[in-house]
Amino acid sequence: YRTKGEMVITCRAAIAWTTNAPLTIEKVEVDPPKAGEVRIKVNINETFSKHELPFPAIWGHEGAGTVESIGEGVTIIIFFVFSLGDKVLMFPLPECRECSSCLHPKSNFCLKESILPPTGLMLDGTSRFTCRGRKIYHLYGTSTFTEYTVVHEIAVGKIDDDAPMDTVCILSCEVPTGFGAVFNIAKVRMFTPGSTCVVFGLGGIGSAVVMACKASGASRIIGVDIKEEKFPRARTLGVTDCLNPQKLKKPVQEVVVEMTGKGADFAFEAIGLIDTMVATLESCHPSYGVGVIIGLAPTNSQLIFDPMLLLSGRTLKGGALGSESCIPKMVTDYLQKKINLDPLITHTLPFESINKAFELLLHNTQTFIIFNLCSQKY
Amino acid sequence: YRTKGEMVITCRAAIAWTTNAPLTIEKVEVDPPKAGEVRIKVNINETFSKHELPFPAIWGHEGAGTVESIGEGVTIIIFFVFSLGDKVLMFPLPECRECSSCLHPKSNFCLKESILPPTGLMLDGTSRFTCRGRKIYHLYGTSTFTEYTVVHEIAVGKIDDDAPMDTVCILSCEVPTGFGAVFNIAKVRMFTPGSTCVVFGLGGIGSAVVMACKASGASRIIGVDIKEEKFPRARTLGVTDCLNPQKLKKPVQEVVVEMTGKGADFAFEAIGLIDTMVATLESCHPSYGVGVIIGLAPTNSQLIFDPMLLLSGRTLKGGALGSESCIPKMVTDYLQKKINLDPLITHTLPFESINKAFELLLHNTQTFIIFNLCSQKY
Repeated sequence: YRTKGEMVITCRAAIAWTTNAPLTIEKVEVDPPKAGEVRIKVNINETFSKHELPFPAIWGHEGAGTVESIGEGVTIIIFFVFSLGDKVLMFPLPECRECSSCLHPKSNFCLKESILPPTGLMLDGTSRFTCRGRKIYHLYGTSTFTEYTVVHEIAVGKIDDDAPMDTVCILSCEVPTGFGAVFNIAKVRMFTPGSTCVVFGLGGIGSAVVMACKASGASRIIGVDIKEEKFPRARTLGVTDCLNPQKLKKPVQEVVVEMTGKGADFAFEAIGLIDTMVATLESCHPSYGVGVIIGLAPTNSQLIFDPMLLLSGRTLKGGALGSESCIPKMVTDYLQKKINLDPLITHTLPFESINKAFELLLHNTQTFIIFNLCSQKY
Repeated sequence: YRTKGEMVITCRAAIAWTTNAPLTIEKVEVDPPKAGEVRIKVNINETFSKHELPFPAIWGHEGAGTVESIGEGVTIIIFFVFSLGDKVLMFPLPECRECSSCLHPKSNFCLKESILPPTGLMLDGTSRFTCRGRKIYHLYGTSTFTEYTVVHEIAVGKIDDDAPMDTVCILSCEVPTGFGAVFNIAKVRMFTPGSTCVVFGLGGIGSAVVMACKASGASRIIGVDIKEEKFPRARTLGVTDCLNPQKLKKPVQEVVVEMTGKGADFAFEAIGLIDTMVATLESCHPSYGVGVIIGLAPTNSQLIFDPMLLLSGRTLKGGALGSESCIPKMVTDYLQKKINLDPLITHTLPFESINKAFELLLHNTQTFIIFNLCSQKY
């Protein structure tokens, strides 16, 4: 079931030529997969944020597609055996199952192809993309803003044949990050049934956190956001109290502490701002509160807080993606209506509108914006 | 078995009149215990650090003694029923068993009589000490640098009649803090048998951490201190590798990461310095390392680090004292030779030499210094 792609494929891709410029859709050449790599026909992807990485690059770190060709030396991976034509998701944080992180029961942050620091290159130090004769960099080993991409075999997960790609593509990264923060990192269900939770940021990841808190039996879920337009959806997903910090007379963390008696059992930061990270910690109960940071702070940010906040017993954790090995199972859960991803998807746009999507991300209340790279429905 | 003390007792105590001045031993009047309080004849106490609290004050937050009198309304506390004349330990971080912290299975930081912020007064807002007509402040509800002290009933724990006070007094705070960090907070034994640990600071608390790591089955214990005179004792207690950061060519955390492959499973900060707190976090494995801060940083310190250190999966926790309810059991464990406290005690001095003890603390390699308040042996 393995076939080495021999041909360079020419297709359309959105190129980020430099910082702060719009992406341009161009013809690119996509090399065949090398050893341990897979070339994917990308059908759907989702955009989330801009990146300050090596330019020019093809962005996009979440996507669903089908296996077009398989490079040499792709070993059988127990959980994710895939064949040509299989529907797959691509993961920006894969699991090699060989490094000390992957072999540890409490970790999912593979050291083999770490997203930090990002080189913009494949593991062999080269790129598979060329445009106008120039080398084009990859993003987090995924690069999904293209009709074809090449990824490492460990970044590919086979999903159910009848999975609708235009929905499950958000399971590539953001939704599992939110679920993983609640189920794997904080373990809301395990330790404190009926616990109180506060979620900073009610965008895509924050919404996934809310859903997971509700599924974990939280008795109260306080949602914090400065965009009140997000509150109705948040309430639908499980938020019991909505707070807009800009309309409060005191810092939001003080309000949360008052609302919960002494502080929330669990607090989640799903924005990526230093101030809200500290507020997250301060919102927690002083002696057993757990703060979980999943928002990506700007590069070289510094978190600054009084260590006394920890000495009384608080815990501060962070994480990304949850666990890759759980994601195909989440696709099945969606098909079996155990989880509902539909309310999280607010826009579906054609590939040509990719720059409009970045505008929407900045100014609107969307959570996830889906791009359809083909005209057909999946 | 309860008797209300009626008399003011005049006895000797070491008074801290102001910051940076030597303590002076003076005659003080100690009031009878009020409701919910107990007056203790202090036999032994131990000193650890200077305090920037309301002056004038009686310092000392660890001590062993006997119950002299019991105030009205002292309710029976299930774990710690005590009578006149019983041998007891006094705890600077008691457990009321009523607040949200005490009722939570994963917490020991009682909110009723929190050490933070310290008021220097009893719960009713008054003091029991007078010297030269002036009110003298308490320290953390204990104040053991006196022949008699008054503490809240929840801060008293009965111990075995045959416990040698001049040893077990160090179980009032520091040793349980070190043990609690390993057994209760990091849970070294539970999650990673044969794990690698690094301990910053090989003083009293750090030594207790080392003992607990060894008891938890750690395969490697790296000890870090700038005073190499502490290394021989550290090796005796269980340290396998000693590092002096001042003799390394690169930051100690980088050396720890190299020694352990990618970082230690667990790292402990038992000094109280911001720089070593950050080094503790950086010494941990990026995706599952757990950093535990138990050192007390200077007031209003700010911990500053890149939140990316957490996003890959690290955990940062803090804690103090372990769990009060375990401490009388630790006394019994010592009597049954399950734990050995003897190597931790480096000096025993008469009460009159209390200022010499503070000098030793600053300049020498001691861990715990014991004060004998009476001439007899206990």
